[in-house]
Amino acid sequence: MRFITFLTDFGLRDGYTGVVKGVIWKIAPDVQIADLSHSISAQNMLEGALALGRAAPYFPDGTIHLAVVDPGVGTARRPIAAQLGSQFFVGPDNGLLTLLLEHARRENTPVEIVHLNQPRYWLPEVSNVFHGRDIFAPVAAHLANGVHLSALGTTIQDAVELSFISPQKLPNGWRGQIVSIDHFGNAQTNLLPEHLQGMASPRVKIAGVEIKNLVKTYGEAPAGELTVLFGSSGELEIAINQGSAAEHLQIHVGDPLDVLA
Amino acid sequence: MRFITFLTDFGLRDGYTGVVKGVIWKIAPDVQIADLSHSISAQNMLEGALALGRAAPYFPDGTIHLAVVDPGVGTARRPIAAQLGSQFFVGPDNGLLTLLLEHARRENTPVEIVHLNQPRYWLPEVSNVFHGRDIFAPVAAHLANGVHLSALGTTIQDAVELSFISPQKLPNGWRGQIVSIDHFGNAQTNLLPEHLQGMASPRVKIAGVEIKNLVKTYGEAPAGELTVLFGSSGELEIAINQGSAAEHLQIHVGDPLDVLA
Amino acid sequence: MRFITFLTDFGLRDGYTGVVKGVIWKIAPDVQIADLSHSISAQNMLEGALALGRAAPYFPDGTIHLAVVDPGVGTARRPIAAQLGSQFFVGPDNGLLTLLLEHARRENTPVEIVHLNQPRYWLPEVSNVFHGRDIFAPVAAHLANGVHLSALGTTIQDAVELSFISPQKLPNGWRGQIVSIDHFGNAQTNLLPEHLQGMASPRVKIAGVEIKNLVKTYGEAPAGELTVLFGSSGELEIAINQGSAAEHLQIHVGDPLDVLA
Repeated sequence: MRFITFLTDFGLRDGYTGVVKGVIWKIAPDVQIADLSHSISAQNMLEGALALGRAAPYFPDGTIHLAVVDPGVGTARRPIAAQLGSQFFVGPDNGLLTLLLEHARRENTPVEIVHLNQPRYWLPEVSNVFHGRDIFAPVAAHLANGVHLSALGTTIQDAVELSFISPQKLPNGWRGQIVSIDHFGNAQTNLLPEHLQGMASPRVKIAGVEIKNLVKTYGEAPAGELTVLFGSSGELEIAINQGSAAEHLQIHVGDPLDVLA
Repeated sequence: MRFITFLTDFGLRDGYTGVVKGVIWKIAPDVQIADLSHSISAQNMLEGALALGRAAPYFPDGTIHLAVVDPGVGTARRPIAAQLGSQFFVGPDNGLLTLLLEHARRENTPVEIVHLNQPRYWLPEVSNVFHGRDIFAPVAAHLANGVHLSALGTTIQDAVELSFISPQKLPNGWRGQIVSIDHFGNAQTNLLPEHLQGMASPRVKIAGVEIKNLVKTYGEAPAGELTVLFGSSGELEIAINQGSAAEHLQIHVGDPLDVLA
Repeated sequence: MRFITFLTDFGLRDGYTGVVKGVIWKIAPDVQIADLSHSISAQNMLEGALALGRAAPYFPDGTIHLAVVDPGVGTARRPIAAQLGSQFFVGPDNGLLTLLLEHARRENTPVEIVHLNQPRYWLPEVSNVFHGRDIFAPVAAHLANGVHLSALGTTIQDAVELSFISPQKLPNGWRGQIVSIDHFGNAQTNLLPEHLQGMASPRVKIAGVEIKNLVKTYGEAPAGELTVLFGSSGELEIAINQGSAAEHLQIHVGDPLDVLA
């Protein structure tokens, strides 16, 4: 059994995601397809890269990640496919695979990336506006069928990577930022356990508020109280038990926060 | 072929539901997964229990219902799994399985419930905030692979159950309440055909309005007219043909209604 | 492997789409189901027919299209199933299959349509309000299992078809209209390449604005600029690179536009 994950900014209304599944199953009838998200903000590669980076490690060896957030469709931006250890990526060359690449480097996993330029693995007619259907879906399906990366295109070394901002050292702590806000209104940051190491009682300053209670899980705090905890991907997270921290603090992706000893 | 249904309050944006599928397929590559809903109102166990209770009877023998509406994740609330006749439940012990239990009792179906306490059936690392991924998904997958309930934990007899309010007898009828409002704005109640038995021309009073026309289906009434009918799960339902009864009447879950002879 | 596509106006919140999958898998455990859309506007057959018509050609031979936008459920409107060449349709007789029929006629594909009237292929209990679950899902599953169309009902010749408005000839061009607006705010029209043939520099007039730059793809225009291009189904489309043309122009489905030489 082969698996394809599927992440886009297509939304769920127009049938575009269903069409892509039809194309995949016409070529590779036995694959299972897992929707990761189709509600990535329109043209937001950073949001797509984050969702993909967090999900990929949980999928089986051989999984192919089909990611299409593609404002440059039909322009000079390259269509690419990549093998990162035992997993694969197919999509536009605009940084969507950044976190997969970072992960591979940390783990010393071999990486190969190709510029897709072999139309015999695409649909016979390729539109200028829907490469998800016409190029990426068929390529993902052929990969699932066992076609080698080298048959699909020419090796490249300069795939586009997004720059994620790293926390800055402060005299008595670190300045980080909000990198995502989830469905519950929990705000994930770029601060990790290492940034709080050695702090006996860390304080978090965000949006003019100071939060002192670092808890282990949401329900440990009284309902409605602002708290800080380590989220499901290990990152520092601002949350309200049974409430929305993002709404309460009026915070957004990109907003700064400080963690102080 | 084994089937897992999947119900949460995760929303569809962040990729959390996709991650859970990855975990399942890594352990049990052949299962089919049916999303029931990922738009249960945040932390609303009652809404989750209702959606699950209505759906379960339509699934094949052996189906495993994975339900994660889990405000108490990481606290003392127990993770549980249950066998109810030929179907299974996996999720937090907070009442999500209430209607499955009621159904089993009515049908005299044997029920076994275990407190999940065997970490060898979980992911190697368990976070405090995402047991859907780290405990419930792997347990559901191992169940699909044929692991027995007894291997996963210790039998318990005191699983949490939600109390659904029963209709009250009135001198000339019954007082019920709205238990759910669906996507179309139809309002489902806790009144059943038995509550209208013997009434030649029942009248429904709700939100200051009296509705007299009990119809068989939406299209039987003129477009835009308030009607009463028996919905798809057999319950009395307030509806407007081609309109939203909930919006028109400004009614909400929990609101009372009377049915009078 | 057999495939069923699934399109409704049910929304994703209430679990209704999951129930339908349970019914299908109970009868035909091996089928794969692709959600096309469950966010068709309530009771909007035209929108459903368009989404289905655009998606169907991309699915494998043998695919069964289950489409349930069904304001007439339980009334005299007929439940139907159809074979159109190598694909199938199951749903209410209200025009949802219009574009599949038009496509079949253009391609001289044989078409057979039956009025579903053999309850032995339905669920044992049929409600008046949810034929998607009680009639259409089991019929689709039996078709997937190889039951012949002729066993499911009686041949009919007068299936309901929706009338899509054709462009009108103007002295120096064509008047068309907006037929859909997608998740990105791109507006698809009923104008095709043939309507622009021979125009050296076509101008599009819509909502008091004249657009001159016909581009090949979104990213070819400066961000924020109104453009015209041919969309993913070949139709003329109004778009804004990295923006919403529908919002900017305040245009809606049904609005007119002119293309002039």
